[in-house]
Amino acid sequence: MSKTSHLTFDLDKPGTSRGHLFVAKGADCEALSLPVISLNKGGGPRLLITAGSHGNELEGPIVARRLVDWLPEAQTCGRVIIVPVLNPQAVQAWSRNTPIDGLNLNRVFPGRADGSVTERIADAVSRLLLPMVDIVFDLHSGGPRWQFAPASTTHPIADADLMRKTLRMAEAFKLPLTLAWEGPDTRGMFDTFVQSQGKVFVCPELGGGSVDAAALTIAEVGIRNALIALGIVKGEAEYPTFRQQKSSRTVETLESDELKSPASGIFEPRCSVLDEVKPGDLIGILHPMDPWSSSALEIRSHTTSIVCAVKSTLHVDENEVVAILPRPLDL
Amino acid sequence: MSKTSHLTFDLDKPGTSRGHLFVAKGADCEALSLPVISLNKGGGPRLLITAGSHGNELEGPIVARRLVDWLPEAQTCGRVIIVPVLNPQAVQAWSRNTPIDGLNLNRVFPGRADGSVTERIADAVSRLLLPMVDIVFDLHSGGPRWQFAPASTTHPIADADLMRKTLRMAEAFKLPLTLAWEGPDTRGMFDTFVQSQGKVFVCPELGGGSVDAAALTIAEVGIRNALIALGIVKGEAEYPTFRQQKSSRTVETLESDELKSPASGIFEPRCSVLDEVKPGDLIGILHPMDPWSSSALEIRSHTTSIVCAVKSTLHVDENEVVAILPRPLDL
Repeated sequence: MSKTSHLTFDLDKPGTSRGHLFVAKGADCEALSLPVISLNKGGGPRLLITAGSHGNELEGPIVARRLVDWLPEAQTCGRVIIVPVLNPQAVQAWSRNTPIDGLNLNRVFPGRADGSVTERIADAVSRLLLPMVDIVFDLHSGGPRWQFAPASTTHPIADADLMRKTLRMAEAFKLPLTLAWEGPDTRGMFDTFVQSQGKVFVCPELGGGSVDAAALTIAEVGIRNALIALGIVKGEAEYPTFRQQKSSRTVETLESDELKSPASGIFEPRCSVLDEVKPGDLIGILHPMDPWSSSALEIRSHTTSIVCAVKSTLHVDENEVVAILPRPLDL
Repeated sequence: MSKTSHLTFDLDKPGTSRGHLFVAKGADCEALSLPVISLNKGGGPRLLITAGSHGNELEGPIVARRLVDWLPEAQTCGRVIIVPVLNPQAVQAWSRNTPIDGLNLNRVFPGRADGSVTERIADAVSRLLLPMVDIVFDLHSGGPRWQFAPASTTHPIADADLMRKTLRMAEAFKLPLTLAWEGPDTRGMFDTFVQSQGKVFVCPELGGGSVDAAALTIAEVGIRNALIALGIVKGEAEYPTFRQQKSSRTVETLESDELKSPASGIFEPRCSVLDEVKPGDLIGILHPMDPWSSSALEIRSHTTSIVCAVKSTLHVDENEVVAILPRPLDL
């Protein structure tokens, strides 16, 4: 068998096939075998669902595994390829980045066949899976450091037509928020690489903080809604229930909508995701490390918004983002 | 000023004094200055409250800071020394252990004046603060890796009289659980070092997973109850409300009460802390890293119990503890 990265099975085979994406060994570690399932019901949308890119965002891997239980039966057309865990070493370490090379898998796309392990994973996905599909859902969450509203997100895309298509796809999840997110540095993201090929990429952020049953249910309903919108499964889309509410709104975040900490210290959130806030409302308290040299600071909203994300209780540096307070988006 | 570890102020001064515990510099890093507050109202119990030993258990530091706001006014007698953050480097890194030397502060007591930074902190606490008190509350929590019921805990103590006194002090918190916890290896714990001096040591575990306002309120009520029981403040002790219930029970955990994972994989909890469980009840699901080579495993209770702690959603190894299912304790 080839020692270069390859798929252990034929994705073109009709029906359900299980196998692995073999990621070649390198100077830093042995080869990896990432479990892959291919659900091929012929013509129709061609979709890749990936999860576990960041090893401490485990909502995605669990929901991807659940999909494998019901989607083969429910699927009526098209192709769905599912990779529940893109970065097994990061998952084992419960860390955002890969422990061996310290790299963020979502910043090294399209990767390098002769690079370190994170780059080799990105390369195998870019060359062996991405050409098979037109749409990608890459499942993320806030991880333990962020409380994040269930949201399907995209970054702004220069191509207006692709931006519209992406936003419509994101809205089809019917999660409480659809978010267009202006990031400071999107180089090497899976998102931008897929979009550079004219394909639709949606990044669902499936909660954050502790992973609970309610968050997993919301995530699963959202993905089912998107599959219904694509015509891959039949059924009625339904808003998932989040805190007794069934609703959805589309927002955007500019960099100026990020609320930053005025100093370093222990941040204590005083709001929850999806809280409606006005200018002056309390978002959190910053406890300086030395309370005898400076007193606790109240961090307040500078805008009218709905809380998309707020940092967990942890130490933050001066100017570190502690909350994301988006604005309505009309496209 | 002395370059060896010392207190920057006189703990014997009457009234409220603020200063620092200076921890000498070593080969690995510069000196540290840990904020300390001394509340001295003369005769009565002599109590040390510490927090932030593990840098990702931040309930304690926040509650310790809140105490500083109201305790000086409420205190009627005795002495209380509060150190809100014992291990500032671990807090800054949001890590259990100190990043510089990789050591667990709660496993290196009594420490070493010429050791690495974690050992130097333990040494300064052991030599400079501990002789001033008869009772220690060291505030911990489950951290992000564990959902932990609000509990005041102790390890079993060979001295039956000290064990009884410790358990009575722990029960005075009136938290939902009082737990005597048989640990596999308690060498170097702050607990055992304090107890070896015949002093009372209680370790409140103030929740776990995401830190929320409800957990902080419960923690603060628990500590106030303990201060009332000691006669340091006046008032009525009250059970804190946890999930609409006001109750408290005393339990113990033998090593055989720890539920272990049958294999390695992603653990998904399916129960909550303080759930009542019977043999066969579902505690969690273990998703193996390669679902094509082995299927998901249900992890079930082997006993009738109340869930004291359950692991967060994360990767666990074979035989790693995923839940603590204690039994009633009568002493």
